[in-house]
Amino acid sequence: MNMLGMFCIRACSGLVGCRTATRVRSLHALPGITAAQIDEEVAKLLELKARLGGDDGKHQFVLKTAKGTRDYNPKQMAIREKVFNTIIGCFKRHGAETIDTPVFELKETLTGKYGEDSKLIYDLKDQGGELLSLRYDLTVPFARYLAMNKITNIKRYHIAKVYRRDNPAMTRGRYREFYQCDFDIAGQYDAMIPDAECLKIVHEILSELDLGDFRIKVNDRRILDGMFAVCGVPDDKFRTICSTVDKLDKMPWEEVKKEMVNEKGLSEEAADQIGEYVNMQAGGMELAERLLQDQKMSQSKQACAGLSDIKLLFSYLHLFQVTDKVVFDLSLARGLDYYTGIIYEAVLTQAGVALVSAEAQNGAPGEESVSVGSVAGGGRYDGLVGMFDPKGRKVPCVGVSIGIERVFSIMEQKAEASAEKVRTTEVQVMVASAQKNLLEEKLKLVTELWNAGIKAEVMYKKNPKLLSQLQHCEESGIPLVAILGEQELKDGVVKLRVVATREEADISRADLIDEIRRRTSEA
Amino acid sequence: MNMLGMFCIRACSGLVGCRTATRVRSLHALPGITAAQIDEEVAKLLELKARLGGDDGKHQFVLKTAKGTRDYNPKQMAIREKVFNTIIGCFKRHGAETIDTPVFELKETLTGKYGEDSKLIYDLKDQGGELLSLRYDLTVPFARYLAMNKITNIKRYHIAKVYRRDNPAMTRGRYREFYQCDFDIAGQYDAMIPDAECLKIVHEILSELDLGDFRIKVNDRRILDGMFAVCGVPDDKFRTICSTVDKLDKMPWEEVKKEMVNEKGLSEEAADQIGEYVNMQAGGMELAERLLQDQKMSQSKQACAGLSDIKLLFSYLHLFQVTDKVVFDLSLARGLDYYTGIIYEAVLTQAGVALVSAEAQNGAPGEESVSVGSVAGGGRYDGLVGMFDPKGRKVPCVGVSIGIERVFSIMEQKAEASAEKVRTTEVQVMVASAQKNLLEEKLKLVTELWNAGIKAEVMYKKNPKLLSQLQHCEESGIPLVAILGEQELKDGVVKLRVVATREEADISRADLIDEIRRRTSEA
Repeated sequence: MNMLGMFCIRACSGLVGCRTATRVRSLHALPGITAAQIDEEVAKLLELKARLGGDDGKHQFVLKTAKGTRDYNPKQMAIREKVFNTIIGCFKRHGAETIDTPVFELKETLTGKYGEDSKLIYDLKDQGGELLSLRYDLTVPFARYLAMNKITNIKRYHIAKVYRRDNPAMTRGRYREFYQCDFDIAGQYDAMIPDAECLKIVHEILSELDLGDFRIKVNDRRILDGMFAVCGVPDDKFRTICSTVDKLDKMPWEEVKKEMVNEKGLSEEAADQIGEYVNMQAGGMELAERLLQDQKMSQSKQACAGLSDIKLLFSYLHLFQVTDKVVFDLSLARGLDYYTGIIYEAVLTQAGVALVSAEAQNGAPGEESVSVGSVAGGGRYDGLVGMFDPKGRKVPCVGVSIGIERVFSIMEQKAEASAEKVRTTEVQVMVASAQKNLLEEKLKLVTELWNAGIKAEVMYKKNPKLLSQLQHCEESGIPLVAILGEQELKDGVVKLRVVATREEADISRADLIDEIRRRTSEA
Repeated sequence: MNMLGMFCIRACSGLVGCRTATRVRSLHALPGITAAQIDEEVAKLLELKARLGGDDGKHQFVLKTAKGTRDYNPKQMAIREKVFNTIIGCFKRHGAETIDTPVFELKETLTGKYGEDSKLIYDLKDQGGELLSLRYDLTVPFARYLAMNKITNIKRYHIAKVYRRDNPAMTRGRYREFYQCDFDIAGQYDAMIPDAECLKIVHEILSELDLGDFRIKVNDRRILDGMFAVCGVPDDKFRTICSTVDKLDKMPWEEVKKEMVNEKGLSEEAADQIGEYVNMQAGGMELAERLLQDQKMSQSKQACAGLSDIKLLFSYLHLFQVTDKVVFDLSLARGLDYYTGIIYEAVLTQAGVALVSAEAQNGAPGEESVSVGSVAGGGRYDGLVGMFDPKGRKVPCVGVSIGIERVFSIMEQKAEASAEKVRTTEVQVMVASAQKNLLEEKLKLVTELWNAGIKAEVMYKKNPKLLSQLQHCEESGIPLVAILGEQELKDGVVKLRVVATREEADISRADLIDEIRRRTSEA
């Protein structure tokens, strides 16, 4: 008998009902044991683990953030704020409301929504009470919110962090904690109008952020499924073959085919037929037209419905003036289980450059711009809300998620490369003095300024040197200094200095606030 | 032998090294068992629990958010945005930068920082890798950030959610997930200047939010400790007696005294001496002056240092024009372990009314406005950063945290009570049509507007009724409607309708954008 066995027996001796092992046939029928008893056992074992840890020699405290996460310093925050303002501005221009949901959900809310990716979900420790998990995306909480509140139509955005226990690749902007910026339209509407607006939004945001050229690939889950059917893929292999097709942006067709045939057991013939389609050059409305005439593809009702919708979509995209960047691409396949119609993904076609240089420092030169590009994705998911509704009532939804971390990475590198300094505060004026013993007068003046809504600072020292006050302004980009001295106090003026030009002018106390406003609104 | 014992023995049979129980003397010396082996045991037990759960009759899916958490709907978000803008505006006016930290920290980062409250920390499940916990406040992550990046001075704000497994009281604005809005000043500066600015900030924010009258209580950890010493409290009882004093805002002195004597084992005499001080009427600089002359109090060097600083603080508060709301109150004692100097707490003196009514609905009428009031708190913590620095280098810090959830609760109730409708979008104009088959023209027009930066909407229907388009505007507060019809298209105009007055005017397409801008900037 080993010690752990001993430990358990001792711990179990108080349990009711499960006195003889002979009664127990399988783990599926244990009438006498309750979850609470198991909790108790678990707690005891974990306590034991904690004690073992405590005795493991000297304890080394590590000063770091959790794996795959990072702090944002003030400079990064300034960039983040700018990017968010652009994105939120666009969402608001399109009339979206916003909501927020808790960072954790009941574990069962997330169960069965992410296919194989479910293993990447962070669970909270069972400390008694409900079993909880950190949200994996914002889409499932949104669907839960709609079902819970019986909302049948809404246009909302949601910007928040999500959590995935994925292999981090931080130089490429892949983290375990990262922001998603989601815009979704829920409701029963005429086909493809909201879908087209989502693409218009991606187009507007990527154009405004000025990240270089981009392309938005579009496809439809129904076209993929129809294509698999007419190519002879067995029904039960649709999902797994689909996830292999999804790898086409990361590896050449030959390897994708090999995976289909060797790993997934697809016939060589079926794979070749798929190859004919997914290797077609991406196009627009005319490609949809051609495929509707395609002998094989036209046999699938599903595919035809998808192709007709692609045609309709492009007619709206034309009116929205965004067809320059959108292509219909049969090789686009998105992994998530919940998509039911149109799917899309935006890729940067130039940004590789910036990120590859960061990657090269980390000694991963072979991968280059391959997986860098994707900055937005989304699609239609008409069944998800119904999974939460007790009566299965469906609420059709379509949405897009902006993958903002990559955008941050690019913007940060841009900022670093540029000569322009990123300001991390908005201070308009520094209250300073050239002489000693003027702290009281400075505090009085800065109070006047604050009370008038001016952004102002004063040093937290009784007698700072003028030079160090001026240096602080230069370093943090404060444009003006209001300098007090004995003479100025006598004359009822303040010496207002422009940091950039070193010009100085005496301004009467009565005019000071207006003068500061005038000068800083010019800037 | 019971089944759990069996299970463990079976599970342990593969373990190396711990074959005989006789070798094992205590849990503190288990050379053969590793954490990994225990993990394995735990995993098996939890799997067993999961199976038991699965067999527990029919599984009822519950559509809810986790206990103690809530969603924010668009109306609540609109209020939240307004409150945040006020607070962030104030922080920026005072020249603060902002940072962000991950929602979870290494568990050991939080260990030993919160005294008894540590039991309220959410841990993440051990899924392999680091042991993580959700942040409990923003102060400890801030200190970790400073130490990790060797930052010795910064003025920063941080607005983010924190997590506490506390007993929720949601009608009073107490949640398990809630926002904190923190402003902190780190650095070695002249005494009490940054401390005074923190109080100025609380004063500005509470005044601007217009929540009714408020008071800011101030005390100093050194005065408390000095007082305990001169009253004859044994050194090792300072903390526990302090946490009893902390209850004075929730129960009368007699009960506090009873707890000191009966539960904490303090002598009746010492308790009475403490009573003399903590029952003194709150005051200002003159109270500090009086206590400096107090025969007993003046024996404590610590208390004298604290009292002198209170005097200095009030001289700065006077210059900042905030002495109308700040009182020096010997009964204020804040629980957290890390405070070393000045401490403060802001309470609303009128807001009780609003929240009590919500509480009464929940059948908890006895408590009234007692614990409702506190909306901000903070203090000086000069030792915390040093706890993270490998060489123990200290960075003095002082800060304040705005308890925003209570503010939200009050603002929401105000909004509900008022007749004014809260707008949840900023849409300026709705593109509508009176006739059928104008979808294309409407999409063209809305594209023009979006491209010009106008916030605009169009219905996602081919042929919506004019009435339903106008109704949507009334409901969501959209001020203008741009109506298209065959005649308007022929004439090159748009009928611009003011929703509130029902006035209509034909505007030429060339002037439309300017006209919309003009009319919505007026509003």
